[in-house]
Amino acid sequence: MNIGMINAAAIRLAGKSRCTPLLSSPFLDDIAGRRVLIKAECLQHTGSFKFRGAWSALSAMDPEVRARGVIAFSSGNHAQGVALAAREHGTSAVIIMPEDSPEIKLRNTAALGAEVVTYDRAAEDRDAIGDRLAAERRLTLVKPFDEPLVIAGQGTTGLEIATQAAELGVTSAQVLVPCGGGGLTSGIALALEATAPEMKVHPVEPAGFDDVARSLISGQHEVNASTTGSLCDAIITPSPGQLTFGHMKRLCGAGFVVTDDACLQAMAEAFNRLKLVLEPGGAAALAAALYHGNSLQSDTAICVASGGNVDPDVFIKALEKHAKGAL
Amino acid sequence: MNIGMINAAAIRLAGKSRCTPLLSSPFLDDIAGRRVLIKAECLQHTGSFKFRGAWSALSAMDPEVRARGVIAFSSGNHAQGVALAAREHGTSAVIIMPEDSPEIKLRNTAALGAEVVTYDRAAEDRDAIGDRLAAERRLTLVKPFDEPLVIAGQGTTGLEIATQAAELGVTSAQVLVPCGGGGLTSGIALALEATAPEMKVHPVEPAGFDDVARSLISGQHEVNASTTGSLCDAIITPSPGQLTFGHMKRLCGAGFVVTDDACLQAMAEAFNRLKLVLEPGGAAALAAALYHGNSLQSDTAICVASGGNVDPDVFIKALEKHAKGAL
Repeated sequence: MNIGMINAAAIRLAGKSRCTPLLSSPFLDDIAGRRVLIKAECLQHTGSFKFRGAWSALSAMDPEVRARGVIAFSSGNHAQGVALAAREHGTSAVIIMPEDSPEIKLRNTAALGAEVVTYDRAAEDRDAIGDRLAAERRLTLVKPFDEPLVIAGQGTTGLEIATQAAELGVTSAQVLVPCGGGGLTSGIALALEATAPEMKVHPVEPAGFDDVARSLISGQHEVNASTTGSLCDAIITPSPGQLTFGHMKRLCGAGFVVTDDACLQAMAEAFNRLKLVLEPGGAAALAAALYHGNSLQSDTAICVASGGNVDPDVFIKALEKHAKGAL
Repeated sequence: MNIGMINAAAIRLAGKSRCTPLLSSPFLDDIAGRRVLIKAECLQHTGSFKFRGAWSALSAMDPEVRARGVIAFSSGNHAQGVALAAREHGTSAVIIMPEDSPEIKLRNTAALGAEVVTYDRAAEDRDAIGDRLAAERRLTLVKPFDEPLVIAGQGTTGLEIATQAAELGVTSAQVLVPCGGGGLTSGIALALEATAPEMKVHPVEPAGFDDVARSLISGQHEVNASTTGSLCDAIITPSPGQLTFGHMKRLCGAGFVVTDDACLQAMAEAFNRLKLVLEPGGAAALAAALYHGNSLQSDTAICVASGGNVDPDVFIKALEKHAKGAL
């Protein structure tokens, strides 16, 4: 796994993924007490960065293997990314999703032409379900994060950050990334190691689901006590990936931990100040920059806004609670 | 007024305004029955395209004149654009705003350092107030639309549309633009006349405030019966501008008229499908593409999403009414 794989993924993604904008607002700078730049991956196809990794993986597959169909497990963003990448490649996708996934993610995945299979997040093992279906139907598994081609695809986000920040005169920054299994975090860290070595990547996780932050401290794979109970469904995973943790251990700074309520508050700020729709997990990095500034050292914080697939009820909750008082 | 002035404005705006993305969603294409591209000007600085015209005007002023301060009248988007452009040029701004402007617009304009003066939209003449203050304080008026430098600034949106659409292989389209006084509409029409002559611009207005659509039919300046009573505060003006109407009469196709409720519905679709926050007036062109497709002839509709400065209560109303059922 190296920068060459990320550059190769960028070539396969050219004209397919969007180069999402790097946004800012003087109001957010004031709250954070430093310059804040927001990489708006919620504007990526299917509403999250996951399309990059999915396209990277499918576009590199042997065409005969790809034609038999692919399978993925996901709370919804990887699901939609794989569904669209499969449809655009003219093949089929089976997606295994927790039955408590946000309605928008379940419906969109099906609407993009995938076959959706649901499971109980607390009681069933999604890997076992995936392995069985893959074997029965000769489908190829597209892993959500612990796969070099997927990490390389997510890493293209980092290439864009380096270029766009440099255009603004920024070469040194702390880069905050919402972190589940670590595919996006490690991909960006690998990309920036090669293209913006004065930038340091920090994973951001929800309180109670900070397996990566704790693993970075202990040096070994820590496990979350639960896999349910956070609004940040997109970034809840039991434990860091094998590959991703190796990269993160070598390249990342300390992890940040944010509450669900801080994510709702960051969603309200993104609504008021950036005109972006973020989902709770997608707002985690912005929440860290806005409300944990004391733990930051750099003049500039670059926050990845990783996704925007949020049900209206949750978004309304964020606005009711935080948008009105924020002006 | 010609393409040279728009190109000159683009040079003054380089590195100052954002080149906003041209977005799309397969779900919106399905609703509209054609390809739909959305120029996301809600992501422009201050949350609307108005920053372009304001910067264009201020950057072209004599420095000594500019240093005495500027004045503008606006329901809020031109206000914020002028306030930020003035602050960045190191000068002061007085902004005359209707007292019923959205709270977010009033507060942001003041927070950007401008002196805000409110008036009664139904009873007072904003031009008279502006003229008096400008004379008393030797301020330079930055007109909201009927001014060549402002039209040129807004026209840079059209230059970007032509380039970005061509990158997607689109050279022929109907371009729908939310229209108040006509600065954005005529600027884009002038830019596209020179850079994408197979594109035709159509103004879009709220029902009951369709002065431009009626003026294009009659060939003379028609006036709205009222200037209050629409959620689309950004695009309510009594009558087309003198300059802008001349350009629109020569270059534009027929106007579209949309209801407030169609705008709320388009806001919900932009939330679900594009992850964009739009204000009602900023969603008018998207509403026309989605719900008035029978009046369109082209394979591709390009919709300008002109602004996103909406109060939380109005956005919640759009989601409550339209987002939940839209999935």
